[in-house]
Amino acid sequence: MQFTVGVAGHSGYGGAELLKLLAHHPSCLPILLDHREPEAARSHLPRLPFTPEAVRKTHLDAVLLATSPEVSLEAVPWLLESGTRVVDLSGAFRLQTAANYERWYKAPHTAPEFLKQAVYGLPEFNRREIAGAHFVSNPGCYPTAANLALRPLLAANLIDRACGIVCDAKSGVSGAGRKPSLKTSFCEVANNFSAYSVLHHRHVPEVLLTSGLEEHELSFTAQLIPIERGILETIYFRATPENLALIEATYRAQYAAEPFIRIHPPGTFPDLHAVARTNFCDIGFVTHPATGRAVIVVVIDNLVKGAAGQALQNLNLMLGLPETDGLL
Amino acid sequence: MQFTVGVAGHSGYGGAELLKLLAHHPSCLPILLDHREPEAARSHLPRLPFTPEAVRKTHLDAVLLATSPEVSLEAVPWLLESGTRVVDLSGAFRLQTAANYERWYKAPHTAPEFLKQAVYGLPEFNRREIAGAHFVSNPGCYPTAANLALRPLLAANLIDRACGIVCDAKSGVSGAGRKPSLKTSFCEVANNFSAYSVLHHRHVPEVLLTSGLEEHELSFTAQLIPIERGILETIYFRATPENLALIEATYRAQYAAEPFIRIHPPGTFPDLHAVARTNFCDIGFVTHPATGRAVIVVVIDNLVKGAAGQALQNLNLMLGLPETDGLL
Amino acid sequence: MQFTVGVAGHSGYGGAELLKLLAHHPSCLPILLDHREPEAARSHLPRLPFTPEAVRKTHLDAVLLATSPEVSLEAVPWLLESGTRVVDLSGAFRLQTAANYERWYKAPHTAPEFLKQAVYGLPEFNRREIAGAHFVSNPGCYPTAANLALRPLLAANLIDRACGIVCDAKSGVSGAGRKPSLKTSFCEVANNFSAYSVLHHRHVPEVLLTSGLEEHELSFTAQLIPIERGILETIYFRATPENLALIEATYRAQYAAEPFIRIHPPGTFPDLHAVARTNFCDIGFVTHPATGRAVIVVVIDNLVKGAAGQALQNLNLMLGLPETDGLL
Amino acid sequence: MQFTVGVAGHSGYGGAELLKLLAHHPSCLPILLDHREPEAARSHLPRLPFTPEAVRKTHLDAVLLATSPEVSLEAVPWLLESGTRVVDLSGAFRLQTAANYERWYKAPHTAPEFLKQAVYGLPEFNRREIAGAHFVSNPGCYPTAANLALRPLLAANLIDRACGIVCDAKSGVSGAGRKPSLKTSFCEVANNFSAYSVLHHRHVPEVLLTSGLEEHELSFTAQLIPIERGILETIYFRATPENLALIEATYRAQYAAEPFIRIHPPGTFPDLHAVARTNFCDIGFVTHPATGRAVIVVVIDNLVKGAAGQALQNLNLMLGLPETDGLL
Repeated sequence: MQFTVGVAGHSGYGGAELLKLLAHHPSCLPILLDHREPEAARSHLPRLPFTPEAVRKTHLDAVLLATSPEVSLEAVPWLLESGTRVVDLSGAFRLQTAANYERWYKAPHTAPEFLKQAVYGLPEFNRREIAGAHFVSNPGCYPTAANLALRPLLAANLIDRACGIVCDAKSGVSGAGRKPSLKTSFCEVANNFSAYSVLHHRHVPEVLLTSGLEEHELSFTAQLIPIERGILETIYFRATPENLALIEATYRAQYAAEPFIRIHPPGTFPDLHAVARTNFCDIGFVTHPATGRAVIVVVIDNLVKGAAGQALQNLNLMLGLPETDGLL
Repeated sequence: MQFTVGVAGHSGYGGAELLKLLAHHPSCLPILLDHREPEAARSHLPRLPFTPEAVRKTHLDAVLLATSPEVSLEAVPWLLESGTRVVDLSGAFRLQTAANYERWYKAPHTAPEFLKQAVYGLPEFNRREIAGAHFVSNPGCYPTAANLALRPLLAANLIDRACGIVCDAKSGVSGAGRKPSLKTSFCEVANNFSAYSVLHHRHVPEVLLTSGLEEHELSFTAQLIPIERGILETIYFRATPENLALIEATYRAQYAAEPFIRIHPPGTFPDLHAVARTNFCDIGFVTHPATGRAVIVVVIDNLVKGAAGQALQNLNLMLGLPETDGLL
Repeated sequence: MQFTVGVAGHSGYGGAELLKLLAHHPSCLPILLDHREPEAARSHLPRLPFTPEAVRKTHLDAVLLATSPEVSLEAVPWLLESGTRVVDLSGAFRLQTAANYERWYKAPHTAPEFLKQAVYGLPEFNRREIAGAHFVSNPGCYPTAANLALRPLLAANLIDRACGIVCDAKSGVSGAGRKPSLKTSFCEVANNFSAYSVLHHRHVPEVLLTSGLEEHELSFTAQLIPIERGILETIYFRATPENLALIEATYRAQYAAEPFIRIHPPGTFPDLHAVARTNFCDIGFVTHPATGRAVIVVVIDNLVKGAAGQALQNLNLMLGLPETDGLL
Repeated sequence: MQFTVGVAGHSGYGGAELLKLLAHHPSCLPILLDHREPEAARSHLPRLPFTPEAVRKTHLDAVLLATSPEVSLEAVPWLLESGTRVVDLSGAFRLQTAANYERWYKAPHTAPEFLKQAVYGLPEFNRREIAGAHFVSNPGCYPTAANLALRPLLAANLIDRACGIVCDAKSGVSGAGRKPSLKTSFCEVANNFSAYSVLHHRHVPEVLLTSGLEEHELSFTAQLIPIERGILETIYFRATPENLALIEATYRAQYAAEPFIRIHPPGTFPDLHAVARTNFCDIGFVTHPATGRAVIVVVIDNLVKGAAGQALQNLNLMLGLPETDGLL
């Protein structure tokens, strides 16, 4: 093992997924950073208290924060000062300005001076910056899928933005975290399906910032599927017949060398089983040239490509390792 | 019991739901019409062979067809000739022309002369015609929800149709019927979510015909939720701020006296639990006046308001009974 | 409506089921008794604070307590003093002595003087006492199924008790109540199955007391099925070939006139779908005469025959109404 | 890659699991053997027709049969004659005699001369024989769990066999295979739980043969959990207090060096999440010395330790590879 990697928030679903992935990583040794963990994980991994003193004494090549935004805000300053690399899976450093964070997360941003240092960790569009970074802000699950589906088409100017884009997003329940609540209780979720944060989800500003779309161009709805894991986004837009005809080639050109993006033949669609427990993002689409309409279906596992897997992909880049280590 | 009502196709999910509802109906006695039923239902109900001879000998006030389109096409002519009232739950008589049926159902329409007699059974918009009808074509599940959500807004001219309407529809698995197939096998559906018939579902022409929308104005996607029952449609459109402000009042005016339609306060949304095993259709919405965007969430139980319940609502009207008999 | 019936604990799953059943009851009007309800139920029902003063001022023919044992212990004394009838769905008054309660519920019993007044509400074995009672303790869900399956066979002396009886019990998640906890969170329960309180469930002493079995004669395990509702118990015992041959006749003799008990033909078994949302208890069994072994499968809906439905059955008896009112 | 391994029946759930595991195996290259596969797997793996000619031309170090008993019966003779090693995951060669097979599988055994060659592939009890074998019959899923839980205790004579052992077994739906049927349709299985083959499951004779129990000593029931994968067996027996006190030590002695068996501390129990998608078998137990009763809870993933994982474990032994290759 060449690298030691601390994992904070390991009792949550994202953190547990990090540990599962790191267990198969060829060169990273995970260390548990214990921060108010509600239960002692049954684990033979080494452990450290998640405090500045304990971390400073131990040389950690990187720390992965699978913590709440509040904990990340507090820890990122002393972690970066200690010289370790940081990948933050929370939303604390994604929105670029303190004001934007405070508007959407309804809480003060207590480390605004670190916002500029945070590199947005979407490797398919940001690989070079991530490779040299000390601090990566890992994308949200919904924005990961939305960006991977939309950015190639936006960059190629294929979409009629005047009529707007609809992103109808659905997620499994693990996206809501492990803290017990009535909303994620079995009897409330089972046999149900519900919309939440319609037009007002905190991932909307992240999508806008990272895709370059304007607020009036995007209608986004989040919805809860009664399953553990997986995100499927159904994206609708309009385009000229000429542009519709370019969608497949545009995707294939953009993603030809990408290890984790798979494009379906036109008219066929991936489902959640296709990406469950993997770091893949699968994209399918259909067009209706006579009326200028298109529909994209994009799927990821919210805990892998939407969280822990992407964090590991970023970590690999930061450490100079093969990007797919521990992920294929 | 004043009325005897034959039920064909009672071993399917829609037919079984009809029997469950009729068991609590104050004035209708169900009779099982046996047509290639794969298994003998454990039932103490009276039974008849589903043949012209058997039906002619018995006086039936009405026959409910929870059969495939093929069986309905064959039976409707001799049923109507026998003088009984018919509610057809299949898609055989919904699309108004044989050509349209043949395009979408990929099979010849063998009873085109009965298409004109079929009254489309959406009571909230067609109550008077249904009351006098002998032959009602019961709406599809997706079109029921779409029409109930859209028609008041279209009639009031609130929607900017130029930019199109997106209807992202999700259904429980019972909508696919009871015949075993890999697509509806437990291990394929559980922990999954998938899109199907994207832009090409056979309910699209039904929505267009009954809502008055043009093909280029509607993008419709059907998706499979890993649950038994329920439909949720998330509908997106654009409108002027003035028109957005009229949505609630328009719904309330339209549906004030409707026993089965419930409008949520703005910004709140119904889920599938709210309508499971009921004939209710619940509608919620949110608007974003600054950008002219709106989202509607409409839910029904696909087997009740989307099939058996609505069929019974139509039957009540046809028989001159209180519309809610057996349904509240 | 002849009778007014207060419902305390109506925001829990058992209480909600009571309201659903009472909505279809021909002669009982429910009144909500509000006791620290975490949310205002969307309901047009009349409401009262759940306090001695408020209840005393209003004439209530009966109060149904779908509350925790703690609340029941506190309320039963003043409710009975106010002259109203009480059906308590909690476990507070099932175990006959304060010592037994304190051992199994790990809390002091603060109303021991009312234990003797409590009639155990299993109508199939206790109908006459229930009919004259002012205070009924509604059976636990597991004991209801176990007693209905075992008592006829024990009374007929068919079971070889020396070798013991195994009761392997499984329940849906609603049995654990509505309070959020990690154990009943969607992601913990979905795709899982687990045993709990093995040999030590608090329903064990209730089964022993009501069936007459000795502790050493019964091995009982509770297990969690990842579904909302339903209990299935698989019961194993030994018997002579002569006694095995008497099982069916014994059941049929015992339950011939019972409206809610259905006996399957030998070798066939009910599943949870058969009783979901009903007050039925279905029983199937198989025997192996050559080796003297028998297996019984008994199913109920834990929220209906295992809680709210049985409470209503008891209430009907207490009020002199037909026992099946609101339940068929 | 040192070894090439053919996989027949790869479109079923067991076969698909084999391919998933082999994809991470350090020294085995899988080759698809195509036998009436209903669909072309999306796979870049090499393929061969599953015929004697095709297989003979290619050197295969081993063939894994994830096929039906009928196909295995037909293929095993020519496969073994071709000199390749065979692991058969079907039940065709588990019951030692043709008569026994014919009684339980209701079909003629067409290759009885190969029954004697078949080594029963339960490595924890048969490791040495498996290592030298050319033909291994992979255990059934239920018998794997039952044997791992019971054999150490039977060998140590801890169990009072006179009173019999109860094994209440529950399995996820993938155990029933991938062929569509009403019994495994989503709407039939979801929200349900059911017993099947009570006392008459075809895995009973396999448990008896491999554990040494007599028919009258075992009551076994199979039940369907509405989940994809996982088996949990709750096992009940009686023993003297002295023997009950030896259970933990007996397990720990037996399994101290086993890589895939984990014993829980007394009174704590594993659930299905603990073993999902792994080759582990976890065992927990509780005893009640005053009454001489014990309960064991044993869990495996039916597709891994109950099928594909165990097959790979056997294959590793047959090929002289580390037993855990591709499995940890």
